[in-house]
Amino acid sequence: MSKPVSTAAPILLDGAWRPSVGTATFSACNPATGQPTTGLFPISPWSECERMIAAAERAFVELQEHPRGSIATFLDDFAARIEAHRDRLVAAAHEETALPVAPRLADVELPRTTGQLRLAAEAARTGSWSRPTIDTRQNIRSCLQPIGPVCVFGPNNFPFAFGSVSGGDFAAAIAAGNPVIGKANSSHPATTRIFAELAAEAVAAAGLPRATVQLVYRVDHEDGLRLVGDRRIGATAYTGSRAAGLRLKQAADAAGRPIYLELSSVNPVVILPGALAERSATLAEEYVGSVLMGTGQFCTNPGLVLLLDDAAGRAWIADVAGRFRQAAPGTLLSPAVRTTLGESVAVLRGAGGRVLAGGEAVAGPRCAFANTLLEISAAEFLRNPEAFQTEAFGNSALVVLAAGVDEMRQVVESLEGSLTGCICSSRESDRDEAAYEIVAAPLVRRVGRLLNDKMPTGVAVSPAMNHGGPFPATGHPGFTAVGIPASLCRFAKLTCFDAVRQSRLPAVLRDANATPRTWRLVDGAWTTADLGGPADN
Amino acid sequence: MSKPVSTAAPILLDGAWRPSVGTATFSACNPATGQPTTGLFPISPWSECERMIAAAERAFVELQEHPRGSIATFLDDFAARIEAHRDRLVAAAHEETALPVAPRLADVELPRTTGQLRLAAEAARTGSWSRPTIDTRQNIRSCLQPIGPVCVFGPNNFPFAFGSVSGGDFAAAIAAGNPVIGKANSSHPATTRIFAELAAEAVAAAGLPRATVQLVYRVDHEDGLRLVGDRRIGATAYTGSRAAGLRLKQAADAAGRPIYLELSSVNPVVILPGALAERSATLAEEYVGSVLMGTGQFCTNPGLVLLLDDAAGRAWIADVAGRFRQAAPGTLLSPAVRTTLGESVAVLRGAGGRVLAGGEAVAGPRCAFANTLLEISAAEFLRNPEAFQTEAFGNSALVVLAAGVDEMRQVVESLEGSLTGCICSSRESDRDEAAYEIVAAPLVRRVGRLLNDKMPTGVAVSPAMNHGGPFPATGHPGFTAVGIPASLCRFAKLTCFDAVRQSRLPAVLRDANATPRTWRLVDGAWTTADLGGPADN
Repeated sequence: MSKPVSTAAPILLDGAWRPSVGTATFSACNPATGQPTTGLFPISPWSECERMIAAAERAFVELQEHPRGSIATFLDDFAARIEAHRDRLVAAAHEETALPVAPRLADVELPRTTGQLRLAAEAARTGSWSRPTIDTRQNIRSCLQPIGPVCVFGPNNFPFAFGSVSGGDFAAAIAAGNPVIGKANSSHPATTRIFAELAAEAVAAAGLPRATVQLVYRVDHEDGLRLVGDRRIGATAYTGSRAAGLRLKQAADAAGRPIYLELSSVNPVVILPGALAERSATLAEEYVGSVLMGTGQFCTNPGLVLLLDDAAGRAWIADVAGRFRQAAPGTLLSPAVRTTLGESVAVLRGAGGRVLAGGEAVAGPRCAFANTLLEISAAEFLRNPEAFQTEAFGNSALVVLAAGVDEMRQVVESLEGSLTGCICSSRESDRDEAAYEIVAAPLVRRVGRLLNDKMPTGVAVSPAMNHGGPFPATGHPGFTAVGIPASLCRFAKLTCFDAVRQSRLPAVLRDANATPRTWRLVDGAWTTADLGGPADN
Repeated sequence: MSKPVSTAAPILLDGAWRPSVGTATFSACNPATGQPTTGLFPISPWSECERMIAAAERAFVELQEHPRGSIATFLDDFAARIEAHRDRLVAAAHEETALPVAPRLADVELPRTTGQLRLAAEAARTGSWSRPTIDTRQNIRSCLQPIGPVCVFGPNNFPFAFGSVSGGDFAAAIAAGNPVIGKANSSHPATTRIFAELAAEAVAAAGLPRATVQLVYRVDHEDGLRLVGDRRIGATAYTGSRAAGLRLKQAADAAGRPIYLELSSVNPVVILPGALAERSATLAEEYVGSVLMGTGQFCTNPGLVLLLDDAAGRAWIADVAGRFRQAAPGTLLSPAVRTTLGESVAVLRGAGGRVLAGGEAVAGPRCAFANTLLEISAAEFLRNPEAFQTEAFGNSALVVLAAGVDEMRQVVESLEGSLTGCICSSRESDRDEAAYEIVAAPLVRRVGRLLNDKMPTGVAVSPAMNHGGPFPATGHPGFTAVGIPASLCRFAKLTCFDAVRQSRLPAVLRDANATPRTWRLVDGAWTTADLGGPADN
């Protein structure tokens, strides 16, 4: 952090790219080589956050005067610009994250990102996401409305699809009618900068307020806390480590500002004996694929697997351990991820976890860690459930061996909230049904998404998806970060219009429906029709 | 707090009425006489909270096995029992709160309470509140599910409709499928006890788990914090003072437990010049009625009125002040309310508020305070907006006189979040339209409900109602405490079922619709139809 600041990348403040006035800088690392990347990025002082908040506040007020269609236009256009700059984005992200160019970045994450932006555009266009609700008898009408400027802190593991100015939180916040202040993840600032350039061009083309999208690369921890607690900020979305997330939550909570967190999650998988008897090798293949995909760096990575301590269970574990040893360890996202993974594995070992595969970092400059499998008995797990739920973010998993179904239940009841929980059971008979019922009831309370016979990685962008879950997986179990239109509702306030005159109502609440595709709950029934009454009251 | 504990009222713990093991007691006060009421109530120690939580946790697990219809049966039956014991309830509440027997308690609040319970029953029956969402192509389905045992801290001002074991929060939490631990408001414990007796009878009659409804009268502040932060508690609903509410919020937030607060709110009313020119006397009558109704002890009491400092404005104020002086001061809910009102008025006076009417407590044992009207200029208000937003809970209001519409806007922009905001404008011409636009934009961001030409007291139980608003009026602007089914969503977690087999799905997510009235969002369209596909997958 000693190179001259003048060479650092500019920040995007109120529609203009300006040099930061900060005096400190940082560089990202190429995790494939362990060397710094060429770009130099500023650490912004509070004065820049302050200017961004003020600009976002003005943009918010202006945005309310724009038709929602212009936001949809922006989102569609931004998606098209991303596609036009696909090679540049993929190259930058590959250098900064070591994620494979194809299929991962170019063929999976980029189309997912543009798909999300287009779904968000459609949501903005119809307004159905805002749950317009009309009581014609009492002339009381309500809907969700934009909440105010939104801060987005993106994670390290999805440089596109969860990126601060490109991902799901960004798309949802904008589509709901809010400006975004993006804080780049500091492991991929150059990638984020390209997205911000494309977004700024699309903002200008759509005629939206200049500060609809702003970008800062990094701020001091204290300034981060101040930012999320500022009373002009409507809400914050944060995806990342539990420690940093909980500090931000405390600051936001104290100020009464909603904050949506996606924190750590062990995503338990329960394998019942009937499933094992029917398809042991398939389950091993599916499980290993899910744990090691993306070098295990998914929020929904199934880091804990629970099965019975019998011959079939032990054979399965030996199969999985062999596959772990055989697979080449992928590259982790950053030196910090490797360090944290080593620390987490040390906690699990220190608590008594026995190493079945891996357990150590891969020597050399590349950020890599041996595929790691640990084992513990359910009895041991239950004596120290907190330590054994340490999330080992990366290519590592813990097997828990239970003496019986009742012990499985006890393990499940000792679990904290997770994003997902999976139960594999017999498909050919009902022999697992009793065990399923015993395990599923406590599991479903503790997870945001319950799966049958399916691994949790791969989060479909579906209106029925929930990418959320009980604390500490997230900060509130009622909201999802993935799935449009539901993800928009996080960035909204409920507003009721009581006896408000027609011409003064938001478009979605007027007698004439805003679009023929806008769903509204009118007198208890969902409909896309206009109201029968006169066009003005 | 010195009478023998053995004579104190029993608590309702796990379905049985038991003497408290606590060593301290309290009595409520009859605010009409200033004398203690006859009942003696225990202050429960932590050990009783612990037992209640454990019982509630067991009840929650059991409840998940009950069909939702049995919860609806309970709610309907409870409503019928309340009606059968109407005279007893009204007498108890009148003694403890001094609220008029009729129309207020017997003819307004009691029917409202039973109406809410029946609407909640209907919501539990259909399950539409849970927003069942189905993606048939990917077989991903989600809905809101019960969150866990709910603590309800009821307020002093609605002994029935917001009561801890009878009111809107109670009805919503139960209808969503959660047991409730009610903490009686300590100003009306005897009334709450009767409700708990009727509820316990209805719980038994419906065959629900015994601990579906439990009651404690009072706990120490520390135990209250521990209660809302206990990880077995799903959520908390609190209505009451800001200071106590923010302490509970901090404890719940730190533990990641959702807490829904309804705190103080000044509920600004803006009167534009055209409205004043057209209907000055009517507006004075409506405003005075709204401020003094229930001795001003409504959450939506319009405690701040903003108008132009001109001849019409001054005449209106003189009219209002005269009506304030002329009306007999009502009885406040408790000595504590009188004390706090006196303190709040002192803060307003200390900051420069000029007394136009009242300003002092009424002498004598009755809990009463003179109807109080204070005045301040907008310029003075803007120099100290925090002090001038001190909520004076009771029969008191502050008039803010602005030099022009722009100064009105500045005052609105300085306001904290409120439950409601009202703008009165010309009905006969469009002369107020420009001013309306200037004032409405910043006002709507700061309130949960915007009204036109209508005072905010009287919160209709409508699906389109929002009884909520930005912090500090509540803890999260996305939720409403009144309005069924939306109020149920506070006590729920979103749960997704991904590739889960038909027989294992919650009833509302199966292919065959649970009831012909259950609305579901299927592949982007709301419908009450069954799914076309096969009955089992």
